Amino acid sequence: MRNKTGRRAICLLSGGLDSATTLYLAKKQGFKARGLIFDYGQRHKKEILSARRICRAAKIPYEILKIRLPWKGSSLLDFGLALPREKKIGRGIPSTYVPARNTIFLSFALSYAEAIGAADIFIGANALDYSGYPDCRPAYFRAFHALAQLATRRGIEHQKIRIRTPLVHLKKSEIIRLGMKLRVPYQMTWSCYEGKKNACGACDSCVLRAKGFSEAGVRDPLL
Amino acid sequence: MRNKTGRRAICLLSGGLDSATTLYLAKKQGFKARGLIFDYGQRHKKEILSARRICRAAKIPYEILKIRLPWKGSSLLDFGLALPREKKIGRGIPSTYVPARNTIFLSFALSYAEAIGAADIFIGANALDYSGYPDCRPAYFRAFHALAQLATRRGIEHQKIRIRTPLVHLKKSEIIRLGMKLRVPYQMTWSCYEGKKNACGACDSCVLRAKGFSEAGVRDPLL
Repeated sequence: MRNKTGRRAICLLSGGLDSATTLYLAKKQGFKARGLIFDYGQRHKKEILSARRICRAAKIPYEILKIRLPWKGSSLLDFGLALPREKKIGRGIPSTYVPARNTIFLSFALSYAEAIGAADIFIGANALDYSGYPDCRPAYFRAFHALAQLATRRGIEHQKIRIRTPLVHLKKSEIIRLGMKLRVPYQMTWSCYEGKKNACGACDSCVLRAKGFSEAGVRDPLL
Repeated sequence: MRNKTGRRAICLLSGGLDSATTLYLAKKQGFKARGLIFDYGQRHKKEILSARRICRAAKIPYEILKIRLPWKGSSLLDFGLALPREKKIGRGIPSTYVPARNTIFLSFALSYAEAIGAADIFIGANALDYSGYPDCRPAYFRAFHALAQLATRRGIEHQKIRIRTPLVHLKKSEIIRLGMKLRVPYQMTWSCYEGKKNACGACDSCVLRAKGFSEAGVRDPLL
């Protein structure tokens, strides 16, 4: 793992454990990371507050951008729709899928990177444990990577922009084991789709998190 | 030109004449268009008001989205930077280039299309008369088209999403001649980078517009 000391990078942060682990990995690799957080009308602000706490703990500058997706199209945005609550993650695309969310997030990250001269964009996407979202697949990220070269001044000048998805092939338990080594403050992360005081333990996201900690043989510091 | 009667489409609108012509072309082709307008911190609101007037004139629903690009990186966003004022359009990427602007706009359009079941996204980009922007090149749109199939539920279900750039190979004068046939209300469009009462006549955008009307042999109804 080459050390990229001082090279600027953008890191997308959702408040969850994957993106937090990704940030700490980028830092470990020597990148000078900046956080990018979105307030996009999700059900609760708890994950935004978590993302901010993680940036502060990691001592990196960050931006919180408010965007509006008035067409909704997701149970995370349309509070009239039920959240999936199954002990076993279903097949197909879950109702929590937000149309083109990663494309929107990555396009802002691309703009940020281009404006400050950063060559690297980190996103904590994971295709293994949660393959229902089309925009979490390796082929999707490869396509965005190709787009990024054509979309930018950097690309024209033959200075690559890299979309980095270091967790994309890891299992949740492997991510957690990696994060424990990196001393990721998992007590600050938030995974539950509900924004209540305690995690619900029943939504897809809680189930995945619990399974990950259990398989990693680590106690979830949030519980 | 097949008639696409009743098929939903998203049309990006900037308030300028290219996007207005694109909208009227989409309508002519039978699409049920919806306008998408961005308030992204540009120098003035005049182009947003123009875009809205055009949607109202065309009798289509529209959304105006406010987004923030705090990193700026463009003379359109950073009011401390000078606008290019040359009678001859310069070579290279002009200072008015906004990092990843089309990628951001198209990603929201993709989200909108996916959420309402639209298969077509229209953007009035033009590569001929203003080839300085990396994200106005045909190769860029081909890359976004490829991305769109991988990014969406529609793509997974093998229902294509099409990025339509009907003006990309036209000269400004050809766009204007087409628009005159389509009865585009050019008096409602706004091209000048400045937001004053009258167009400045000196910025790149004014110069291109004047050249286009002159070559088309049409009087600019805005003057």
